[in-house]
Amino acid sequence: MAGARKAITGVLLDLGGVIYVGAEPIAGALEALRRLKAAGVPLRYLTNTTRMPRREILLKLRVIGLEVAPDELFMPALAARQYLERKGLSPHLLVHPALKEDFAGDWGAGGVAVVVGDAAEGFTFAAMNAAFRALMGGARFLALARNRSFLDADGELSIDAGAFVAALEYATGRAATVLGKPSPDFFAAALAGLGCSAEEAVMVGDDVEADVAGAQAAGMTGVLVRTGKYRPGDEDSVSPPPDAVVGDIGAAVDWILARAGP
Amino acid sequence: MAGARKAITGVLLDLGGVIYVGAEPIAGALEALRRLKAAGVPLRYLTNTTRMPRREILLKLRVIGLEVAPDELFMPALAARQYLERKGLSPHLLVHPALKEDFAGDWGAGGVAVVVGDAAEGFTFAAMNAAFRALMGGARFLALARNRSFLDADGELSIDAGAFVAALEYATGRAATVLGKPSPDFFAAALAGLGCSAEEAVMVGDDVEADVAGAQAAGMTGVLVRTGKYRPGDEDSVSPPPDAVVGDIGAAVDWILARAGP
Repeated sequence: MAGARKAITGVLLDLGGVIYVGAEPIAGALEALRRLKAAGVPLRYLTNTTRMPRREILLKLRVIGLEVAPDELFMPALAARQYLERKGLSPHLLVHPALKEDFAGDWGAGGVAVVVGDAAEGFTFAAMNAAFRALMGGARFLALARNRSFLDADGELSIDAGAFVAALEYATGRAATVLGKPSPDFFAAALAGLGCSAEEAVMVGDDVEADVAGAQAAGMTGVLVRTGKYRPGDEDSVSPPPDAVVGDIGAAVDWILARAGP
Repeated sequence: MAGARKAITGVLLDLGGVIYVGAEPIAGALEALRRLKAAGVPLRYLTNTTRMPRREILLKLRVIGLEVAPDELFMPALAARQYLERKGLSPHLLVHPALKEDFAGDWGAGGVAVVVGDAAEGFTFAAMNAAFRALMGGARFLALARNRSFLDADGELSIDAGAFVAALEYATGRAATVLGKPSPDFFAAALAGLGCSAEEAVMVGDDVEADVAGAQAAGMTGVLVRTGKYRPGDEDSVSPPPDAVVGDIGAAVDWILARAGP
């Protein structure tokens, strides 16, 4: 499949489970990124993490030895902020307390949008019911992501924001607008920064749905790594299958450099 | 539609929103039930409430002036208890603290079943994640009910257990076995107590999905009342439509007595 594609001129990388797990970089990740940059392949970082504001993610990357400029990092909270500003809406936040700084400021009077991120311990019954009532009262319904699970600090999968989005969808009978991966608009915004077309770009991630199938649906090449939340058989749960399944980010960079264009 | 049916020889009644709202009986409900009993029509009570144990529901009914024998009341917790005993399973409870007495006792060693009821404030992130992990580890998945919303004490709709069941279904990719309404087994157990066939029985409820469409799918007549959680247009959200839509339990009893058999 990849053989018939155009040469790769841009790379999108997931963070959690691909570059780091918890506070630690994945073995070989930094060296792999150095090789990618040395080859002159433009890249951007796309995370669905909604437990940290942009400032903290950039700091975390710097601490593990990766300098990333603010405009190289795409995250759902910023996509939501732009959506709210464009529509003149004010947010009803059901998000992690740490994320609230990315929604600071004055908001429009054009109505309310419920914004659901990974609120973690903030997913109380009272907060879920308040969001339910706002939605039943006519608020817009935005989901930062709809991931099913994530690899938690204890090495086990934990339930992710997508489950609570599904809960509110079921209770209200309404569908959320997803702003992070796998939203085609989210991939398109990152591609615009790279200045390359979808068919010249590759996305590398550990989430076969949000990262890989999402990128493929947006016209890109999708590469699944067997790190992070990856579980054997994940690649068989989507159709079409990933364009490639590789061991880790190091192997993904090998795969990309063998197909990189001028 | 009802004209072609057999005469009614048994009645199943929902409780919340039909007989009472909060602590108060619905106007005319007690008088309507007296007329039904005076006509000699056998009846049973079927509730999807999972915030109170059987003991408290019977007490609540007595306080508002309705004497109900234990075996006239069907509730999902008892159906779950029978299911667990039959399969030799032990419960991982995600239910309201008050409901736990209905699950007291020694349990089998044949495995674990996650049991989800309306845990209300017990739907914390930690409890949801513990249930998610048990399910990912292979536990059976039982839902006491999957109602979307209920009429809360403040007169507004609140999010119900079904939303949290949907959340766990989404995160795990598995489907829950529902034990309360609209499970055909649940209706069948109540009908067995009445000693009448489904086509001779009518179910009266305020939930167009769990009560009315559920009863109709089980072969019974379904009557929707415009009290409790009923909202205009509810009858248009299901296909086929309810056999009748009436103002309240009083009007439902009139409708039933006009069609009651010997």
